[in-house]
Amino acid sequence: MPEIPKSFHMSPEDFRANADQVLEWITAYQKRVEALPVMSQVKPGEIRAKFPTSAPQKGEPFADVLRDLDAKIMPGITHWQSPNFYAYFPSNNSNASILGDLLSSGIGVQGMLWATSPACTELETVVLDWLVEMLGLPSSFLTTGKGGGVIQDTASSATLSALLAARERATSGGSNEEGCDRSLTCYTSSHAHSSLEKNVKIAGLGRKNLRLIEADENFAMRPDALRRAIEADLAAGKKPFFVMATVGTTSSNALDPLSAIGTICREFGLWFHVDSAMAGTATLCPEFRYIQQGVELADSYVFNPHKWMFTNFDCSVFYVADRTALINAFSIMPEYLRNQGTATGEVFDYRDWHVQLGRRFRSLKLWAVIRHYGVEGLQHHIRRHVELAQQFLAWVKADSRFEVMAPAPLNLVCFRLKGDDAANEALMNRLNQSGKIYLTHTKLNGKFTLRMCIGQSQTEERHVRTAWELISRG
Amino acid sequence: MPEIPKSFHMSPEDFRANADQVLEWITAYQKRVEALPVMSQVKPGEIRAKFPTSAPQKGEPFADVLRDLDAKIMPGITHWQSPNFYAYFPSNNSNASILGDLLSSGIGVQGMLWATSPACTELETVVLDWLVEMLGLPSSFLTTGKGGGVIQDTASSATLSALLAARERATSGGSNEEGCDRSLTCYTSSHAHSSLEKNVKIAGLGRKNLRLIEADENFAMRPDALRRAIEADLAAGKKPFFVMATVGTTSSNALDPLSAIGTICREFGLWFHVDSAMAGTATLCPEFRYIQQGVELADSYVFNPHKWMFTNFDCSVFYVADRTALINAFSIMPEYLRNQGTATGEVFDYRDWHVQLGRRFRSLKLWAVIRHYGVEGLQHHIRRHVELAQQFLAWVKADSRFEVMAPAPLNLVCFRLKGDDAANEALMNRLNQSGKIYLTHTKLNGKFTLRMCIGQSQTEERHVRTAWELISRG
Repeated sequence: MPEIPKSFHMSPEDFRANADQVLEWITAYQKRVEALPVMSQVKPGEIRAKFPTSAPQKGEPFADVLRDLDAKIMPGITHWQSPNFYAYFPSNNSNASILGDLLSSGIGVQGMLWATSPACTELETVVLDWLVEMLGLPSSFLTTGKGGGVIQDTASSATLSALLAARERATSGGSNEEGCDRSLTCYTSSHAHSSLEKNVKIAGLGRKNLRLIEADENFAMRPDALRRAIEADLAAGKKPFFVMATVGTTSSNALDPLSAIGTICREFGLWFHVDSAMAGTATLCPEFRYIQQGVELADSYVFNPHKWMFTNFDCSVFYVADRTALINAFSIMPEYLRNQGTATGEVFDYRDWHVQLGRRFRSLKLWAVIRHYGVEGLQHHIRRHVELAQQFLAWVKADSRFEVMAPAPLNLVCFRLKGDDAANEALMNRLNQSGKIYLTHTKLNGKFTLRMCIGQSQTEERHVRTAWELISRG
Repeated sequence: MPEIPKSFHMSPEDFRANADQVLEWITAYQKRVEALPVMSQVKPGEIRAKFPTSAPQKGEPFADVLRDLDAKIMPGITHWQSPNFYAYFPSNNSNASILGDLLSSGIGVQGMLWATSPACTELETVVLDWLVEMLGLPSSFLTTGKGGGVIQDTASSATLSALLAARERATSGGSNEEGCDRSLTCYTSSHAHSSLEKNVKIAGLGRKNLRLIEADENFAMRPDALRRAIEADLAAGKKPFFVMATVGTTSSNALDPLSAIGTICREFGLWFHVDSAMAGTATLCPEFRYIQQGVELADSYVFNPHKWMFTNFDCSVFYVADRTALINAFSIMPEYLRNQGTATGEVFDYRDWHVQLGRRFRSLKLWAVIRHYGVEGLQHHIRRHVELAQQFLAWVKADSRFEVMAPAPLNLVCFRLKGDDAANEALMNRLNQSGKIYLTHTKLNGKFTLRMCIGQSQTEERHVRTAWELISRG
């Protein structure tokens, strides 16, 4: 063997110099993002065509990577961090979070087991216990009792985990052993997020066994309709086992009545999962906690700090009131993962709490965000976003050409031009193609409806005012 | 509304100053990690007890975060980036990757749909097409034809995706609609990764429908045993549909014979998935491509750049030869995700290629790694790791107190002290508790076996030599 191997690694000195360039790029981007067209206007294949079809044989300077980032990639970026981004839901970011995630990359631990980095597991437990108190969630979610939290990548994955834990409990593990019991049925609002439909397919439950329950005039699930559906299934020999309620639906931020739904779940012995992916963050503020009244009846709960809590993607927080079924659903123990830590029975191995085996140091950025802002700072920004949305709502209401399509309790306003769908779709496309703002749509009561969702970190009153000026020009 | 809102965000100036401290911390860590005890020695709960049980009400200086990182977290870190880390499998890292991921955090796009950032989707397609050529994989995996690649978070998730695509194809979507067909059966080696067992539970296929096929004396799957199992299931009215072969098993790096297994899959019309999570990286070097002979018969394939290709966690690359079944397995289309890009039919929406809906700019760090090292640089380091493992193997072979337990074609050496399991376990624990090296174990032929896996970015000959000196003291 040669004594001194040639190394292609980036030296510490080059790393610092390149990192300075990257940070310079990021801060410059943060300053100019407001002026960039929010929604990328490129055509399919346009970005791809700028790149060679083969990888470079020889390494290239990092400066070339940054040059290509500007020249080739940026035209194809839709700027989620723009203060003029009102589409879908926020996926906001913060400098504290970026630094926390940078530390996670730099430390580079893989926390699949407690033993593979005890601090990676234990800091996650600490921070998720903090959040129970911060959000006014039930103490059953604390790890100090039978429950506990884990950071998942997305709410889709968290809801899949809830579904699998529920199936485990309902069939005493039988569906894991024999294959999924096809008589199991589950329930959610017709306005719930589509990820449940995807997850029902994944888990082998069958899309036909998912009941989409009718909503009331405010697009919230009707408990009476839920009860009827459960009773009809029982009468038909089916096995109801899982109900998902939503606090803040994707379409319109509708609030399902958790107390009534949870009570029905208790009565029939069904797993009760609460999806509060975006709106959950609002409960940092005591005045908004009414939206989750009844959450103490929940078996599981999910909210996404990577939506509206200044924590960059991905970071989805998932709680269970009793971790037994969850762990039983996922746990397996091959010889090569056996270790002294696990054998003590005193530790969590978070690989048993989700689909993945491997995991990075997921809690660092969330911890950094909470430390940087404090509860007070987070509350401040959430309140501002809600105020801005309420101001926008007032402007829409005051303009007789527009109609409000749903209650707007928090940071999402659903509205439309009075008139036909085509006019609304044309308005949306015109706004988005202008590059000045970006918003998306849904259908409510069969009508094409615009969604104005306010939650980007840097969105201030002047941005919302400009957005309304653009929209109200029609 | 107040005209000038108070902001709790970290200012650009503070961000740069704090980032300098973080980078200083990371480079200092990289320098000192070699001297740190590799495996954390803390007791369960020890790290957690250092933290307050409630979040701070008021924000704190970022310097306090870094101080706590050193004082409270570092004692609980098992150093995956240490050159003395030989446990499990590598989860290596590089400065190029850290910077690529930092850019992803800074840009902060969410690429669930092509439309939500076309460049996020298209760069991923470009880089994954590059890798097909770089690894000598079949052209059927290129997106220019019917196939294509996507970045998943872990090989567990990728294998789940393969399983679901296979089920979709085998039941023409029926299992998605009606619930999982419990007569479906799947097959893998008794030495395959446990994630398939976990995934079989998740997908509702039932653990009893997973056949663990006998291995030969080299721990590779026996094609004759596979054929017998398939035929027995067919005779019993079951429906074989999925076979997973492994290139480099977790236990011992055993190489399943892909050609023979793939031929059986073709004969019986079964989905053929290849798990090459760690070893796949070796095929960057043409001289190691023999390990995947027959991969052209595969319907799907996974390897993890976050294991052995200098790309920090998470980054798992998944290919399919025909993307139709994969997309059908995952696709759903609620109104609020409809958009002009998707409607053209000319774009990929990667949310339809995996469990998650949301996704960060996953390809940036992989692109940065490939650009920085070039094919040549990656090959160099992989060859060095294999050389080092072969040197270690030679030392073990030359010492009559030890026995080699499995072929060691690449970077993993399985060996043990001749004698009883207790002596080997005691040796392993002594080594790990010394803090000087960290290695883990498996069982081969029922015997407790040490695994020496060489793949950390900074591992050089002197580290491996020291490891052998420590081990050979017994």
